Amino acid sequence: MPENRRLRVAIIGATAYTSRETIRLLLQHDQAEITALCSRREPQPHIAEVFPDLAGRLDMVCEPIDPAALKGRADVAMLCLPNGLAMQLVPDLLAAGLRVIDFSADYRLKEPAEYAQWYNKEHTDLENLRHAVYGLPELHRERIRTASLVANPGCYPTSAALGIAPLLKSGLIEPQDLIVDAASGISGAGREPRPEHHFPERHENFEAYNVGTHRHMVEIERTLDGYVRGGKTSVIFTPHLVPMERGILSTIYLRPHQPVSVEHVMQVFAETYEDEPFVRLRTGMVRTAEVARSNFCDITARVVKSRIIVLSAIDNLVKGAAGQAIQNMNVMFGLDEKAGLM
Amino acid sequence: MPENRRLRVAIIGATAYTSRETIRLLLQHDQAEITALCSRREPQPHIAEVFPDLAGRLDMVCEPIDPAALKGRADVAMLCLPNGLAMQLVPDLLAAGLRVIDFSADYRLKEPAEYAQWYNKEHTDLENLRHAVYGLPELHRERIRTASLVANPGCYPTSAALGIAPLLKSGLIEPQDLIVDAASGISGAGREPRPEHHFPERHENFEAYNVGTHRHMVEIERTLDGYVRGGKTSVIFTPHLVPMERGILSTIYLRPHQPVSVEHVMQVFAETYEDEPFVRLRTGMVRTAEVARSNFCDITARVVKSRIIVLSAIDNLVKGAAGQAIQNMNVMFGLDEKAGLM
Amino acid sequence: MPENRRLRVAIIGATAYTSRETIRLLLQHDQAEITALCSRREPQPHIAEVFPDLAGRLDMVCEPIDPAALKGRADVAMLCLPNGLAMQLVPDLLAAGLRVIDFSADYRLKEPAEYAQWYNKEHTDLENLRHAVYGLPELHRERIRTASLVANPGCYPTSAALGIAPLLKSGLIEPQDLIVDAASGISGAGREPRPEHHFPERHENFEAYNVGTHRHMVEIERTLDGYVRGGKTSVIFTPHLVPMERGILSTIYLRPHQPVSVEHVMQVFAETYEDEPFVRLRTGMVRTAEVARSNFCDITARVVKSRIIVLSAIDNLVKGAAGQAIQNMNVMFGLDEKAGLM
Amino acid sequence: MPENRRLRVAIIGATAYTSRETIRLLLQHDQAEITALCSRREPQPHIAEVFPDLAGRLDMVCEPIDPAALKGRADVAMLCLPNGLAMQLVPDLLAAGLRVIDFSADYRLKEPAEYAQWYNKEHTDLENLRHAVYGLPELHRERIRTASLVANPGCYPTSAALGIAPLLKSGLIEPQDLIVDAASGISGAGREPRPEHHFPERHENFEAYNVGTHRHMVEIERTLDGYVRGGKTSVIFTPHLVPMERGILSTIYLRPHQPVSVEHVMQVFAETYEDEPFVRLRTGMVRTAEVARSNFCDITARVVKSRIIVLSAIDNLVKGAAGQAIQNMNVMFGLDEKAGLM
Repeated sequence: MPENRRLRVAIIGATAYTSRETIRLLLQHDQAEITALCSRREPQPHIAEVFPDLAGRLDMVCEPIDPAALKGRADVAMLCLPNGLAMQLVPDLLAAGLRVIDFSADYRLKEPAEYAQWYNKEHTDLENLRHAVYGLPELHRERIRTASLVANPGCYPTSAALGIAPLLKSGLIEPQDLIVDAASGISGAGREPRPEHHFPERHENFEAYNVGTHRHMVEIERTLDGYVRGGKTSVIFTPHLVPMERGILSTIYLRPHQPVSVEHVMQVFAETYEDEPFVRLRTGMVRTAEVARSNFCDITARVVKSRIIVLSAIDNLVKGAAGQAIQNMNVMFGLDEKAGLM
Repeated sequence: MPENRRLRVAIIGATAYTSRETIRLLLQHDQAEITALCSRREPQPHIAEVFPDLAGRLDMVCEPIDPAALKGRADVAMLCLPNGLAMQLVPDLLAAGLRVIDFSADYRLKEPAEYAQWYNKEHTDLENLRHAVYGLPELHRERIRTASLVANPGCYPTSAALGIAPLLKSGLIEPQDLIVDAASGISGAGREPRPEHHFPERHENFEAYNVGTHRHMVEIERTLDGYVRGGKTSVIFTPHLVPMERGILSTIYLRPHQPVSVEHVMQVFAETYEDEPFVRLRTGMVRTAEVARSNFCDITARVVKSRIIVLSAIDNLVKGAAGQAIQNMNVMFGLDEKAGLM
Repeated sequence: MPENRRLRVAIIGATAYTSRETIRLLLQHDQAEITALCSRREPQPHIAEVFPDLAGRLDMVCEPIDPAALKGRADVAMLCLPNGLAMQLVPDLLAAGLRVIDFSADYRLKEPAEYAQWYNKEHTDLENLRHAVYGLPELHRERIRTASLVANPGCYPTSAALGIAPLLKSGLIEPQDLIVDAASGISGAGREPRPEHHFPERHENFEAYNVGTHRHMVEIERTLDGYVRGGKTSVIFTPHLVPMERGILSTIYLRPHQPVSVEHVMQVFAETYEDEPFVRLRTGMVRTAEVARSNFCDITARVVKSRIIVLSAIDNLVKGAAGQAIQNMNVMFGLDEKAGLM
Repeated sequence: MPENRRLRVAIIGATAYTSRETIRLLLQHDQAEITALCSRREPQPHIAEVFPDLAGRLDMVCEPIDPAALKGRADVAMLCLPNGLAMQLVPDLLAAGLRVIDFSADYRLKEPAEYAQWYNKEHTDLENLRHAVYGLPELHRERIRTASLVANPGCYPTSAALGIAPLLKSGLIEPQDLIVDAASGISGAGREPRPEHHFPERHENFEAYNVGTHRHMVEIERTLDGYVRGGKTSVIFTPHLVPMERGILSTIYLRPHQPVSVEHVMQVFAETYEDEPFVRLRTGMVRTAEVARSNFCDITARVVKSRIIVLSAIDNLVKGAAGQAIQNMNVMFGLDEKAGLM
């Protein structure tokens, strides 16, 4: 990227909630600019028709999704598409000279068989799957710097991995007995209206869903496996739906190998995250409202009887999606990691 | 109806929100019982599949909509169907010996041309349209007693008419300058999921809709016309959507012919409603939360400068639909008007 | 109680949310009537000033709290008072010939030392503490029948105990590794306004609180201890606050002694609860919205890897307070257990 | 202000919701910086204790309120204090060389008698009251440029005045028959917990308040009087509370002198606001969600029978408070008016 211009960003799948959030953050980013918005909608809408809140802030008409047409017009593509579509586009985007940050799950699981098992489709881009980097900067910053393809993590895995990885790495906890009980706002379900997310059904309601079958369970495990010497992690994951727009809180139950103090646990976190701009360690409680619209992950811990309980809060659309993508972009292109995110 | 048995009720269109509310209230009614639930769904579901909250409370499987099959099995049909479908069924239901309470708008407007204009379809049952009675018991109780077909009023018209009719009848106010500014919970939009009622779109949002074009505007006018000697009323109606499940508040701006005190206004209401079990006159403010799940209409008034402001609150699903239907049923069949509703 | 009259109920602490809920349910109870409402407020308010939704439904003025004055006027007292106040009144209420259902925690923990430790006060009524019966009818129905003093269970313990006791009793699970992750609507925090429950702070927010220190943790343990031969249970309890009015969902993580199928787990529940009118076993998911305003406890289970996950939903104000109190009352006085509750 | 440094801002009353919003916006402002946070709290807290979401974003400890101590440290003071306190501080702040933007109502009404009547206190700073400028940039930009004291408008008056002034100025409407029916999110009530704003009371509730007695009624009138030749305006104002955090929608009923088309009305708005960066004219509906967290005022109009209905939406904390204050600040100090606000 020449030094005398701003980074050029193309957003593909521009009508998704994650796209809106990416646009909102990029409008505050003084070293990047949006140069293309691509959508499958016909006819191609002005972005302010799709998101009326953007009127007067971004004057762009969407264009069809055509990787070749982005050549020379964008340095990086943000892919806000459903699982399965992303892997059809990535090869052409890379060929057109763009680096790619993919919001879907297509490049998160390294094992094609595992992808096929959990996503019910064969992976069609094994070549790029091999060298894709999982984009959790707090854990993989160095590899992200040089990556041409970053798999932007899922929202639940982000909050869970940041709360577990340091303790696993330090050898403090049992890797086969990890319980992640999490709750999310409804924007995590996307923009498509469904009967169960009709306002009168969701309001004044709280429930679990996909208990033990959610695809993020395996993503959390694969993200954490690397911190266990010679073994594998086992995660039990229970997501819940909260009648609010945004936010994820993970309540994580961990079993220490031997009795441990909460001070020691917090010390391990402090050492891991002392230079991290987006992880805030709290002594008081963490709350989704306190991370809303920010890229922070707030973490605290308690020791109760024989367990460590870690509480980890993020905004599912920011640190769980668009904010993390921009953080990855900043790392990839050598920008200030906090640009656009404070 | 024989004296030694309970009134038998068939609910047609059993999967609607208004049906659920009707069922909920009838389960508390000691002089009535549900004998049939009819639905267009295929295959016919158990009602607890449609509304899981009813499991353990009502053990009934839906049946197809077939008026003839209800002959001898039900005394009254509650029609919870969309506009246009009701008028296709009413003749056969009456022929099968049932009296009918129709929740749709099909029999509310007496002029076929007006129905055609506002509902974009020709009325196909002019015969029954002629003798249908508009089911606002506080205004038309005597005619409801003997009606075979009751047009259950719309939710907004109920709250508006109860707040305006007494003042109009008393000759206190100008009939051509009626402004009804109303706000409703989202259940009023029905059970069908739509993009604009997707939880993240509706939550933390407030807006007007169908300004000056809502079908209830003409229904309010026709309901009030009868109280104006030789003339017609003119209503400006602006509905709004509130991010809550249920409740309607109408804020009504009226112009008195001459200066009037709030005490006088409240006195007019008191005289009209002194024996009404479901109208509560308030000196303090009225609130949708205070009428939620009840058949009450709470009313108060203020005089501000040259205007009377009437505030009228109901639960859109109860006094605005299911509760009023049961109140009508009680009147039609000589039951205690409050049965099932207190 | 003479057979020819209705059961007379006094509600003490009549301005609490739990009192309102008790009133609401008793108004539907055809074998009981409210004969006194007692409050500490000065001057004594009409109940419709305290709860405007009750206007037109209950015409009673509160009276001071005076057990002697209730003699001969009430058969049972519902005590909706804060912890610590209840035990000051119970001896006099019993002496006045009333049976008592206490909503507070004063008679739930049998060990005075444990009460002192968790509630920071000495127990002052050891005599009655000894013979008080913990009022979970599904677990202690026979003892409740003859009890003069019933300790109405806490909301979280109700949902947790109903989800765990059958599996513990059947010897299926490890009693020292019980994790209860629960979430509650805000009415559980009572009616007193506090900064953290100010609408703008609570709306669009989700958080845990009192992690490992909530008083219901020990109540759950003591309730479950009886099902473990010669041992004690150990519970880790994490409550959360959901931005909704009412409802509790407990997500319970249990460790079976050996691999078990979900069918077997559900079978154990089915055998325990087959005749219970208020426990509904679900194969699909349970939701707080589906138990709202009802006395049901909805339960389902899943087996995930090495754990049983039980999901248990109640309305915190009904099965978690007022409804359970009425269920206890029905059992104590030989009424139909479902009266007022369906 | 020297050209080579950023504008220095002191926020006084730093613990208010409006202060938090001002801080949030100033952190995005590249030509201004916060140099002091002043509060009445003892002991003086770190701002991240007051607003935990600011941890990691603003590292400042509050200081006592002492105008002299701000001399030379700040160019402008943002006064986020209750009515009555502001006028005690303004003289000293001006004397210390700061220009002042006052969020309270102390300098909004020019007539001391009117202030005394509506705010129940005598005005104690008549000197500055005289030259204070009402800070609605779209209406008074030129006078704001040179003002040393700006009275930042109320939230309701902002949304109402922007929707009415152009039509009044154009002579299109009757100035004595203005009805403003408005609804606001709960943050408008401030941060102090009160029983009526306790979450369970406010959630799932909609109501009017202060009907015909709200102080913003007279503020709207005085703001609009200037557009009527030789006369005065008369406004009927009815505010409502919506169960959401933020947002105001005003539904405004106006009587044109003679029949008018909606195109003509919109044309008048277009001519008035064509160069305004923060007023968006909509042909579709306006929604509070679409202006949330932005400084936009969205306006549309309809003609219904004999009335013009104007709908005007703002975020009460932004265009209705903090955003407008920053817009005023930008105008006062010759910065780009949009700085920090897009």
